[in-house]
Amino acid sequence: MSKKKQFVEQITSMEEDFAQWYTDVVKEAELVDYGPVRGTMIIEPYGFALWENIRDELDRQIKETGHENVQFPLFIPESLLQKEKDHVEGFAPEVAWVTHGGDAELGERICVRPTSEVLFCDYYANKIHSYRDLPKLYNQWANVVRWEKTTRPFLRSLEFLWQEGHTAHATREEAAEETDRMLEVYADVVENYLAIPVLKGRKTESEKFAGAEYTLTIETLMHDGKALQAGTSHLFGDGFARAFDITYLDKEGKQQYVHQTSWGITTRLIGALIMVHGDNRGLVIPPKIAPKQVMIVPIAQHKEGVLDRAYDLRDQLAKIARVDIDASDKMPGWKFNECEMKGYPIRVEIGPKDIEKNQAVLVRRDTGEKEFIALDEIEARVPALLEEIQQNLFDRAFEHRNKKTTAVKSIEEMEKALEENAGFMKAMWCGEEACEEEVKEALQVTSRCIPREQEKIADTCFCCGKEADKMVYWARAY
Amino acid sequence: MSKKKQFVEQITSMEEDFAQWYTDVVKEAELVDYGPVRGTMIIEPYGFALWENIRDELDRQIKETGHENVQFPLFIPESLLQKEKDHVEGFAPEVAWVTHGGDAELGERICVRPTSEVLFCDYYANKIHSYRDLPKLYNQWANVVRWEKTTRPFLRSLEFLWQEGHTAHATREEAAEETDRMLEVYADVVENYLAIPVLKGRKTESEKFAGAEYTLTIETLMHDGKALQAGTSHLFGDGFARAFDITYLDKEGKQQYVHQTSWGITTRLIGALIMVHGDNRGLVIPPKIAPKQVMIVPIAQHKEGVLDRAYDLRDQLAKIARVDIDASDKMPGWKFNECEMKGYPIRVEIGPKDIEKNQAVLVRRDTGEKEFIALDEIEARVPALLEEIQQNLFDRAFEHRNKKTTAVKSIEEMEKALEENAGFMKAMWCGEEACEEEVKEALQVTSRCIPREQEKIADTCFCCGKEADKMVYWARAY
Repeated sequence: MSKKKQFVEQITSMEEDFAQWYTDVVKEAELVDYGPVRGTMIIEPYGFALWENIRDELDRQIKETGHENVQFPLFIPESLLQKEKDHVEGFAPEVAWVTHGGDAELGERICVRPTSEVLFCDYYANKIHSYRDLPKLYNQWANVVRWEKTTRPFLRSLEFLWQEGHTAHATREEAAEETDRMLEVYADVVENYLAIPVLKGRKTESEKFAGAEYTLTIETLMHDGKALQAGTSHLFGDGFARAFDITYLDKEGKQQYVHQTSWGITTRLIGALIMVHGDNRGLVIPPKIAPKQVMIVPIAQHKEGVLDRAYDLRDQLAKIARVDIDASDKMPGWKFNECEMKGYPIRVEIGPKDIEKNQAVLVRRDTGEKEFIALDEIEARVPALLEEIQQNLFDRAFEHRNKKTTAVKSIEEMEKALEENAGFMKAMWCGEEACEEEVKEALQVTSRCIPREQEKIADTCFCCGKEADKMVYWARAY
Repeated sequence: MSKKKQFVEQITSMEEDFAQWYTDVVKEAELVDYGPVRGTMIIEPYGFALWENIRDELDRQIKETGHENVQFPLFIPESLLQKEKDHVEGFAPEVAWVTHGGDAELGERICVRPTSEVLFCDYYANKIHSYRDLPKLYNQWANVVRWEKTTRPFLRSLEFLWQEGHTAHATREEAAEETDRMLEVYADVVENYLAIPVLKGRKTESEKFAGAEYTLTIETLMHDGKALQAGTSHLFGDGFARAFDITYLDKEGKQQYVHQTSWGITTRLIGALIMVHGDNRGLVIPPKIAPKQVMIVPIAQHKEGVLDRAYDLRDQLAKIARVDIDASDKMPGWKFNECEMKGYPIRVEIGPKDIEKNQAVLVRRDTGEKEFIALDEIEARVPALLEEIQQNLFDRAFEHRNKKTTAVKSIEEMEKALEENAGFMKAMWCGEEACEEEVKEALQVTSRCIPREQEKIADTCFCCGKEADKMVYWARAY
């Protein structure tokens, strides 16, 4: 028996061991394999097709909002990385260093980009002279490297794929608007394409990006109740501009510093997708980004006419959906299992009896529900069903998040909430980093964001008891 | 006066100094800038949009021919690189070595991929077991690093972008077919999209890829008469399979080695594009891959109704072409110059007199010809004109190449042909590497390919005078 045929038996249940379930799904659904250097990943065809669909939609929206794609180098000279103090402190401990080119030792060490702020800043310093040169609205799709100690596919890997936007503006206000705009783009892609509800808010000082004035974030909740930061958008103000001397002459001929932003989303999103929608039978992929939205499984395909009819159906549906057919010599049961493991939104079964009745069977991956549909109605039904599935996945995740969100007024309440399997915990916070550290130490809980929509849960900080006017979302997080 | 306004005066003529002309065009057309590490490049928005168009068409054809995209890691452990002897000898001298991760020195040096054969082989060895697992038809779009001593934007840079296909097949015959198939895909993209005629053929032993059984190539001729290798497709046979132990059980249950190929096309193609079609006013971009096919320049735009009419025209043409409008406050003359520098295929001028006559002016970038066109005919004319331009660019390049191709029967004739500014030189070759070395040493000429379509030019090798039955294309090359 080949390895593939056993996968249903092999996958650990999420209730038994969520981390192992995740690893099993990633491997068995053939999303990734491990690269030969510890912590690196090989994104396999199915995983990469998923990433392409996410990327293409996000790229469309990035262009629609006026941005242009560019490609900056992989390499940063050590001296350039060191130009912005907070930034280098944040990143230097986890970069990979190139010291030799061919046989020769380099005069200066070169770092493999962990992110590209300093490269863009160096470029902008040379290119921006006048208010006419602004804004610069650039984005790149790239690989970056961070020398992480513990790694997991998609969630934390030595190398990952992402897009990083880097913009320069005449005023702080414009830059702040840009930071907001891109957070909305991210929220749209994650909610409306990945079907994952997000909390939008601002990171606390201790959780913000190294070198940023502030960081906006979209936070999501996984099935196991842990949070995952799904995208961030940073306002730099003129901090980098001062460090890199990026100035322009304004309309009055006065020298001004530019105001900058950066924003990024990574292959981590695929990790979120798995942990929000997946179940004990494998992946569940939202239709809008599914590489295959419909998989046709012929039943008793050796019987005359079945395969012909199944192929006709494939050709018919190909006009309205991303459809494929599994006409291999595997048993239908194995094919069903594979459909479930891969998370195809709809499975279509068609056999001799169906053909007699001029019908097919549609099976939803999200609920497992079956329906019989007349073949002359299938072209209308499939797009509608795909929409229903997309909506249901979002609603289900939304409900799950709300059910797991609890207001707490003290550390004790937080501890209790965690024992009762809370996800997000809303609590008032005084603004002191000491309280964040205490909670992290005691409960491995971090502040996730200060949401725009504030609620008043209490008058005092849940941790230190001092006066507090900020409501913050807290959680254990990936 | 801003820097931009001077560019027409700044650009060196190609007759005066071709290399400087190239560098000027690359910079003034805003395709690339230099990165902070020597030999790296920043691909700017216009350059990257051009690459995206080339990439998207090639990606479409790669998928259409049954390949799947994947993403392999950037890093290769030194021990893995060393597994195939010829391959490591070819690449080790020019790789970048990572020796430190964060503060820690690594136990084993890691190389930044110069190409990914060994990564794919390592993966295939684990994944391929049965004939049912074959063929594997994978491709990736990636950045690679080669520590080159002398570099030029697009043509030879420390880091460049490319796609690399890596396939594994049950038989040598299937692998050889794949090698041919991908060469045809490359030839199609380069001839029918980049409008650059190619010579197809096989590399000699000394010019083949390190580790290949043979290398197929498409060779192109630049305006200055030098050749440029525009894409290669390699048959590995079972050489890598033996080094990496990639085997499968065939239908009879017998253990067999797989047969492999790899094939790649890089951002070098943009260099070819510049040097084939460009002229002393800048770039000339073939319509099919032009980021902007039509640029509208309003004349006397301060006069009432002009801008409105120009924007209407933009909206109208946007349905049939990639169109933009330059409504900035620069003088029309400067705008014309910029259109020429950027190589937009068609410039549309529309001013008060044109509006009166219900017409516009179309100016072709390739020939400079102007035509007046009634506004109600413009929607039909523009696509036809774009096609004419595409065809004319190809025809012109084809004629140029033929004019510069000469048959030679001796080293003396080759020397004379070079003095008369030959490009490709056809000559009979005995098959000995010694002759290739002699010609390279004496005339800086290399063998470009052994074409499929052979001609008998003489009975003896042009170099050593021994019997010869192979007709080879020779040239000085980039």
